[in-house]
Amino acid sequence: MGNRIITLTTDFGNSSPYVAAMKGVVLSINSTATLVDLTHAVPPQNIRQAAIGLMTSTRTFPEGTIHVIVVDPGVGTDRSLVCAVINGSYFLAPDNGVLDALARANKVDKIVALTNASYWLPHVSETFHGRDILAPAAAHLSLGLPCESLGDPLDSLTHLSWPKVKVMSGKIEGIIETIDSFGNLITNIDEEQLGDVPRDESVRILCDEHETQGIFQTYGDQPAMTLIALVGSGGRLELAIVDDSAAIMLGISVGTKIVLSW
Amino acid sequence: MGNRIITLTTDFGNSSPYVAAMKGVVLSINSTATLVDLTHAVPPQNIRQAAIGLMTSTRTFPEGTIHVIVVDPGVGTDRSLVCAVINGSYFLAPDNGVLDALARANKVDKIVALTNASYWLPHVSETFHGRDILAPAAAHLSLGLPCESLGDPLDSLTHLSWPKVKVMSGKIEGIIETIDSFGNLITNIDEEQLGDVPRDESVRILCDEHETQGIFQTYGDQPAMTLIALVGSGGRLELAIVDDSAAIMLGISVGTKIVLSW
Amino acid sequence: MGNRIITLTTDFGNSSPYVAAMKGVVLSINSTATLVDLTHAVPPQNIRQAAIGLMTSTRTFPEGTIHVIVVDPGVGTDRSLVCAVINGSYFLAPDNGVLDALARANKVDKIVALTNASYWLPHVSETFHGRDILAPAAAHLSLGLPCESLGDPLDSLTHLSWPKVKVMSGKIEGIIETIDSFGNLITNIDEEQLGDVPRDESVRILCDEHETQGIFQTYGDQPAMTLIALVGSGGRLELAIVDDSAAIMLGISVGTKIVLSW
Repeated sequence: MGNRIITLTTDFGNSSPYVAAMKGVVLSINSTATLVDLTHAVPPQNIRQAAIGLMTSTRTFPEGTIHVIVVDPGVGTDRSLVCAVINGSYFLAPDNGVLDALARANKVDKIVALTNASYWLPHVSETFHGRDILAPAAAHLSLGLPCESLGDPLDSLTHLSWPKVKVMSGKIEGIIETIDSFGNLITNIDEEQLGDVPRDESVRILCDEHETQGIFQTYGDQPAMTLIALVGSGGRLELAIVDDSAAIMLGISVGTKIVLSW
Repeated sequence: MGNRIITLTTDFGNSSPYVAAMKGVVLSINSTATLVDLTHAVPPQNIRQAAIGLMTSTRTFPEGTIHVIVVDPGVGTDRSLVCAVINGSYFLAPDNGVLDALARANKVDKIVALTNASYWLPHVSETFHGRDILAPAAAHLSLGLPCESLGDPLDSLTHLSWPKVKVMSGKIEGIIETIDSFGNLITNIDEEQLGDVPRDESVRILCDEHETQGIFQTYGDQPAMTLIALVGSGGRLELAIVDDSAAIMLGISVGTKIVLSW
Repeated sequence: MGNRIITLTTDFGNSSPYVAAMKGVVLSINSTATLVDLTHAVPPQNIRQAAIGLMTSTRTFPEGTIHVIVVDPGVGTDRSLVCAVINGSYFLAPDNGVLDALARANKVDKIVALTNASYWLPHVSETFHGRDILAPAAAHLSLGLPCESLGDPLDSLTHLSWPKVKVMSGKIEGIIETIDSFGNLITNIDEEQLGDVPRDESVRILCDEHETQGIFQTYGDQPAMTLIALVGSGGRLELAIVDDSAAIMLGISVGTKIVLSW
């Protein structure tokens, strides 16, 4: 189940003709594939942002789903293209670190370098391996090809380093890692790291010069225009302004430090 | 027919990872569902704008289509989630008024509150009921589950009040209700309300300080850069600048009063 | 194969309710059609831009694919709507020149004017033929209707004139024809026209006051922030700034002249 489903994540922008070209390649090989756009709005060549998005966007998909990721600043250099089998699903991407966070947080069953040219398009350009190598490989997988056939086994994926959350006694330090379309500020601090922290007013949360107290259940727990902290639907601590955009109201951007103390 | 089709309307922004997460949930339960994006560009938490869009975007879909709407400022409060059967199609949404206009203009067959947790995800977050309750409910409907199984019957939907069109002798007053992507100004005055109004130059149409005469059939009836009134494809009176954006050229926004007199 | 696939190209903007309405019409007639968005971000009424996009976005799709294009400044006038069979695939569009470049570069098998009202919606508006005529015609084709049934045969498509590339001895002159989402400047000069040109430093490329030498294979051939020329994935000469946006960095827009000399 799920093997017909092929998702696409790129930095091509919404409705790019390049996205369309990839879909054409897939449907030319398997006209019954189910294509799902995860996002095409990754900031150009921003591997880190793509990696964060994949954690949220892919985890509800059924086992066996084929995820194609094209954020590829190194296209045309000697970086590899890979198919990684993670938790029973397939992730086809340049081996530039974009799969590293996902691989560390989950079970990696297998990694294959896409070296078998039988499953590429006949003519491979120097500038668009998403269309010429990743898309046909995904389509062949969706027809039932074993991923081993796509090329040579690899031992590991390229590593991508991330700012780490510091958990101390009575204090946690993290950063704003991403901002969603409502302007909520989502941190790199997850529920497990929050384990010990009290949820009542005894916890103070400081971000830039802005401060709030307590960790709430939902936006509706406080009146409109209030700054609150809560654990969002992705399992991360976030800062929100009820009924407004925290990013715009507070002028806070990705990378800003956040400190909890209690 | 049409029961496999699930449409999505949200305020998450185009290509949001939250939209992807909802699609993953649907496809995990029914991998053969046909997903169609209606729009993800509803202004954040703008129930009124979503309600207007649904009138245009859903009415061509086949009977039995399952429409999921996630514009949900009250997520985490005690507002209900519902499945309303309208003209033989299914509308799953928070009961915050977003379905009210549609329900009033059509035949409501049934309303069910989504209280049966058997058809929710096992873990329900406080902040994302679109993914955790609406998406799985839609997927189960698409597999043939009767909507009564989703929960308890309800008598009525939450009401949302709208500015009314005033039809007087020799005069009609309405407002600009929405602006389309060409900058055409679409009013809340429909063809039925226009019944008596002459279409020739004897009718004067005033909006802000701008005036035009006559109601035309199509944009091509007048030269480029002319302000014209016509009945648009959604059956509403609209103001347009031929080959340009009336919204930008005239600086008119949603809510502006429009007066016809003859 | 490919006959169930229907693609959409419009200038309605991403996630417009008008796009949704077209999808509803298609799925009402053929609920098993596979809908693929090519782009809805064509600049309003920009026939030329749509025509260029179609060259890239449609060519990887399987034979028999049904492409619907709605960029229709003449809606409501007496311009025709057509179905052109090009290289075995179907292109349904207003006959306003949008298909001309595609038709000249490929084999046109047949052209039919969509005059048979049996395959229109029962009520046809004056302002939205995409929904009322093109969408139902496409859906009927996807059910196996021969395209001859859609109306009367036509001999030719409306012509659209384009700036021509001048190939001289030791010199080629073209223009920047489009800009992709990375800010790469894509010219109207194709690989065939480049046949004689040396690829090494002896070729000088001048665009506005900016100059570079040599034609490279890929972005990775030069260091970050370098202006380079290369043949892109669509087979056209392009100018790029490695790891940045040439359009923004150089302030160059569509229509700017580019000169190669050697």
